[in-house]
Amino acid sequence: MNIVLLSGGSGKRLWPLSNDVRSKQFIKIFKGENGEYESMVQRMYRQIRALDREAKITVATSKAQVSAIHNQLGEKVGISVEPCRRDTFPAIVLAITYLADIQKVSPKEPVVVCPVDPYVEQDYFDALKTLCSQAEKEEANLVLMGIEPTYPSEKYGYILPEDKKCISAVSCFKEKPDIQTAKRYIAQGALWNGGVFAFKLEYLLKKAHELIDFTDYQDLFSKYETLEKISFDYAVVEKEPLIQVMRFGGQWKDLGTWNTLSEAMEESCIGEGIMNEKCTNVHIINELNVPVLAMGLHDVVISASSDGILVSDKEQSSYIKPYVDKIDQQIMFAEKSWGSFHVLDVEHESLTVKVTLNKGHSMNYHSHKNRDEVWTVILGSGRTIVDGMEQQVHAGDVITMQAGCRHTIIAETELKLIEVQLGREISVYDKQKFALE
Amino acid sequence: MNIVLLSGGSGKRLWPLSNDVRSKQFIKIFKGENGEYESMVQRMYRQIRALDREAKITVATSKAQVSAIHNQLGEKVGISVEPCRRDTFPAIVLAITYLADIQKVSPKEPVVVCPVDPYVEQDYFDALKTLCSQAEKEEANLVLMGIEPTYPSEKYGYILPEDKKCISAVSCFKEKPDIQTAKRYIAQGALWNGGVFAFKLEYLLKKAHELIDFTDYQDLFSKYETLEKISFDYAVVEKEPLIQVMRFGGQWKDLGTWNTLSEAMEESCIGEGIMNEKCTNVHIINELNVPVLAMGLHDVVISASSDGILVSDKEQSSYIKPYVDKIDQQIMFAEKSWGSFHVLDVEHESLTVKVTLNKGHSMNYHSHKNRDEVWTVILGSGRTIVDGMEQQVHAGDVITMQAGCRHTIIAETELKLIEVQLGREISVYDKQKFALE
Repeated sequence: MNIVLLSGGSGKRLWPLSNDVRSKQFIKIFKGENGEYESMVQRMYRQIRALDREAKITVATSKAQVSAIHNQLGEKVGISVEPCRRDTFPAIVLAITYLADIQKVSPKEPVVVCPVDPYVEQDYFDALKTLCSQAEKEEANLVLMGIEPTYPSEKYGYILPEDKKCISAVSCFKEKPDIQTAKRYIAQGALWNGGVFAFKLEYLLKKAHELIDFTDYQDLFSKYETLEKISFDYAVVEKEPLIQVMRFGGQWKDLGTWNTLSEAMEESCIGEGIMNEKCTNVHIINELNVPVLAMGLHDVVISASSDGILVSDKEQSSYIKPYVDKIDQQIMFAEKSWGSFHVLDVEHESLTVKVTLNKGHSMNYHSHKNRDEVWTVILGSGRTIVDGMEQQVHAGDVITMQAGCRHTIIAETELKLIEVQLGREISVYDKQKFALE
Repeated sequence: MNIVLLSGGSGKRLWPLSNDVRSKQFIKIFKGENGEYESMVQRMYRQIRALDREAKITVATSKAQVSAIHNQLGEKVGISVEPCRRDTFPAIVLAITYLADIQKVSPKEPVVVCPVDPYVEQDYFDALKTLCSQAEKEEANLVLMGIEPTYPSEKYGYILPEDKKCISAVSCFKEKPDIQTAKRYIAQGALWNGGVFAFKLEYLLKKAHELIDFTDYQDLFSKYETLEKISFDYAVVEKEPLIQVMRFGGQWKDLGTWNTLSEAMEESCIGEGIMNEKCTNVHIINELNVPVLAMGLHDVVISASSDGILVSDKEQSSYIKPYVDKIDQQIMFAEKSWGSFHVLDVEHESLTVKVTLNKGHSMNYHSHKNRDEVWTVILGSGRTIVDGMEQQVHAGDVITMQAGCRHTIIAETELKLIEVQLGREISVYDKQKFALE
């Protein structure tokens, strides 16, 4: 099975666990099979692998997420990286061109595209498989998944099938409605359009070349910025006459708000948290290393990270975005492909950061114009290169670097260090990268 | 006026802002005259000074609080330090002996004793003055303040006056009652016993020598540990036949829980906090440098510090103690006479701390047996002494200290440093102090 997982943009609806660099799909909030917490991305990846060990999984995403994806899914996962944001049609075309040209998938094979963030069970992946088989039959050019609505949602477009069979022709599409209209659609037998669909690779490659002037993956990638922003639904789905919908009645939840996300949590508390017996329907998600104590609360979600603390009535948690948008908070924590960083202290002319490097990984070789840095290694061992000079280091070693000096560290084991940045103008933009001599 | 302020023990009822080393009276939560926040101790000190610039103020407290008191009230305030906890009678005797022998207060002068933590207005201090004058008249040996009850509290003992005059003889004392009994007492005209009373110094010195075998302050201090634990009420008040009560009808609030404390806050939010318009009766006290966002909450207090996060229904906040007792959390922040420390990161074999030294202050000259340390100065300048070697340091300098080496730093300006502790057995108890050669 060829699966393209669309890993969408950064979101603030799950602040303080999601932010400009960490999307909700990377929050480790679900109990995995081995008892460890896993993210939406990890959960879905594991679920697909459980069904089909040989599945060719490609994550279509933006540059900003590449580090986090490698960090969570390993180095082997296929990633189609959008050079910039250009809506779903260009993103999907880039991904399937990547499948054809880089992954060498045969044009005769079916491909299924789906978002990475719905909360689903194994039956969903069985349905994806059926969707692929249906696409292979070529009764239609596109086979959509139509999700049986559980409530009159305003968040989805609706698909009206021609009949009630499991697989049906599509009668028409409806844009995201208001609640009243949604109720009417549902009464008419409409299904949610969750953006899940299958097709034969050659079909969409042909469509792509009809609509975009490009030769191959590299060419498309290089001109990506010049492409028109247009959605896949608008460019392809709504114009395609040969289209089918397959109904899906299993669990399919969009965990886009703390309200819906906390409902999917198996435990009421992740991280250090205590609730007294007067609490009802309270969820705590605490990434800090100090405890949260909740007393006498009802229908409340508490979420704490290095970026901030949210305490919200569950229903009200759907409305946090405008408030979070106003918060001008430096990003205090980020996962990178090589490990993670964690801002510990912010002063006017200094910044203290804890850096964790995964075994075998290293930073870019780089320098800063306007700041000195001091590293104190607190765990593990590795090698530093400072202005070309290589040196073995281990816990307890101190490395001082003046502004302008080029430096990196290579972790031979897991390695942690405390970095103190010193200068008048400390900025993440003050960084020049170099190739190692 | 001679005032002894009893600064009581550490408490967990205002966790996470109070803990084993920080008592509630040191939490900066009230808007002071210059717009800066002040603590209960600072507020009361300022209020007394406003009434009587010459007032001789002595804080009776334990060793653990001396640093915080000097930090908040300056070096000049008189402190009578109990070598260990021995209930209120020994503590008050030690304090008045300190007044007589160290502060050289004449035995003929009146002294007023009161707790440091009620939330009061200026009229309370006028009442203290009247209490002193009344003691000077020698109509009685002890003059108590009787606070007019505002509700049938179970937290206070009650005083039954013989009549309703402003100053009256005491008919009898009642122990802390249950609510029903409290209502009955109040119907009978009883007043709260808030532990506020005045006397002539010579009276209590005589009583002290009757009950304790000691010569002077130094002698009492040295045998303090051998003294019987006994309350002042039990040892003196309840046995004294010549006793008066002066009624006080002004504001007198015990801010011992988040519920009562938040009621006394002028703003609904201290520190970085945002509430949406659906919040009602919500208070945020946030000492962290990241924001708290509250959405759709009612009657809730949120309090966040380096030690943890409390989110509590206001009424339920009275019951946090047993839950906090169970939290075995390292102390992450403490104010000291020389400045403060702030734990930034805890790893298995390292600890990263931010140390702030006030101008002109220094650490003890000390060494550690089982850990190395690295200092990176991030602000200000001063001098380090490491194994007797003195060195000028300023922001950007790095000092490395092996286990066993003796070290201190003297701040010439306000000075901040990041200290990384490295070792297998990091403990606050691993510290040997030395005199500077």
